[in-house]
Amino acid sequence: MTSSSAVLPQENRTVRRKRGRPPKDQSLPGAPRQRMLRAGTAILTEKGLSTVGIEEILTAAGVPKGSFYHYFASKEAFGLAAVDSYAEYFAAKLDRWFTDASLSPLERLRGFIADATAGMAKYDYRRGCLVGNLGQEMGALPASFRTRIIAALEDWEERTAACLRAAEAAGQIRAGADCRQLAQIFWIGWEGAVLRAKLEGGPDALRAFEEGFLTMLGAETALSTPQPTQRGDDAAEKEDGA
Amino acid sequence: MTSSSAVLPQENRTVRRKRGRPPKDQSLPGAPRQRMLRAGTAILTEKGLSTVGIEEILTAAGVPKGSFYHYFASKEAFGLAAVDSYAEYFAAKLDRWFTDASLSPLERLRGFIADATAGMAKYDYRRGCLVGNLGQEMGALPASFRTRIIAALEDWEERTAACLRAAEAAGQIRAGADCRQLAQIFWIGWEGAVLRAKLEGGPDALRAFEEGFLTMLGAETALSTPQPTQRGDDAAEKEDGA
Repeated sequence: MTSSSAVLPQENRTVRRKRGRPPKDQSLPGAPRQRMLRAGTAILTEKGLSTVGIEEILTAAGVPKGSFYHYFASKEAFGLAAVDSYAEYFAAKLDRWFTDASLSPLERLRGFIADATAGMAKYDYRRGCLVGNLGQEMGALPASFRTRIIAALEDWEERTAACLRAAEAAGQIRAGADCRQLAQIFWIGWEGAVLRAKLEGGPDALRAFEEGFLTMLGAETALSTPQPTQRGDDAAEKEDGA
Repeated sequence: MTSSSAVLPQENRTVRRKRGRPPKDQSLPGAPRQRMLRAGTAILTEKGLSTVGIEEILTAAGVPKGSFYHYFASKEAFGLAAVDSYAEYFAAKLDRWFTDASLSPLERLRGFIADATAGMAKYDYRRGCLVGNLGQEMGALPASFRTRIIAALEDWEERTAACLRAAEAAGQIRAGADCRQLAQIFWIGWEGAVLRAKLEGGPDALRAFEEGFLTMLGAETALSTPQPTQRGDDAAEKEDGA
């Protein structure tokens, strides 16, 4: 498998254990498997999977060449493990925000958006969403990725829908909203916004989508409040500091 | 350049002309250059550029192997020409809808959405947006793609903003809206919806985003109208037939 090869199933490759290597708990942060997943996730959020080679992941993880197949049966198996690991990491991030009782439900959503925006800014908007990147790549990836990526998005949507239901109960958004559908629209648009922010190298798309989505919810925003000075001239862009 | 190599600039490669080949107008639909762009665009909307080789494009176009460099200085030059050609094709599609005086401004927008949805259905949702695909791939593409892709999106946004201004003037959407920003939000979310539709192999995401966007505009939709039977139970998904 060369550094630029597409992902191909190699499920039957024999998994050998290196002579003299003591068995370790591979779920520990310093364990090679976890180091490869962490380094691989960073690379996959930037470039996707198809154009990335195993060597690049091993080098970034500081794991000796040749030891990849000790831990993963194939590049496909590695990619699927990276999706699962990223899905869990992101679900935990959503839970931290969406269960923060010190914030109103809408503040929880905006807090998550600000957190995710800061996460992109930290790496100069080069890294996007692993799930979005791999979703876009589906035409070049094995079919096994499809269900995992959809499952990750649906899991995030469930968590987001619960936050929106709390916002509805608190009277912060339009009553009678289909919160499951709104959560789906959030993730559809958010993935598009992350793509655009990565393309432009800046946060404008994330902010624009946030404002649009809040307007959709029936929350008060600059978009939903008529601005007499803006009529007809589409005045200068506003920053909402999110 | 192998079939799976990433794009590398090869601007200085000598362009030779095949002995005996008569000069042709390469802008004609049957000319090899146009055939390669057309076949390449179909492949790029499905797989992106990074994982696609020149051979695959030549085979699909029915153009003899070895003649690629008669028409393009490099794979990068081909990719940029494909972006430009796709941007123009899509601008013409937008103009056809957005200048149709037989429709109301909001019907023009919905007509475009229905047209684009039918375009995806025609290829079983395998093909997405070339500009979205390549935007997502920026981490693996030469920097030259960035400005071209952004320019394409901004051009489409200008055309969409004009349609939204007409909708505002006709009283179909909220007064005082920042139509340029709304058009940007449309394209942010639409690219996300196309990604998701491709991932899921169906139109649900396109329909959900359409309904969300119309709600954002202040147009009457199922989302913006409280549904007493839906409150609290997030009742079954609705089809709006768009």
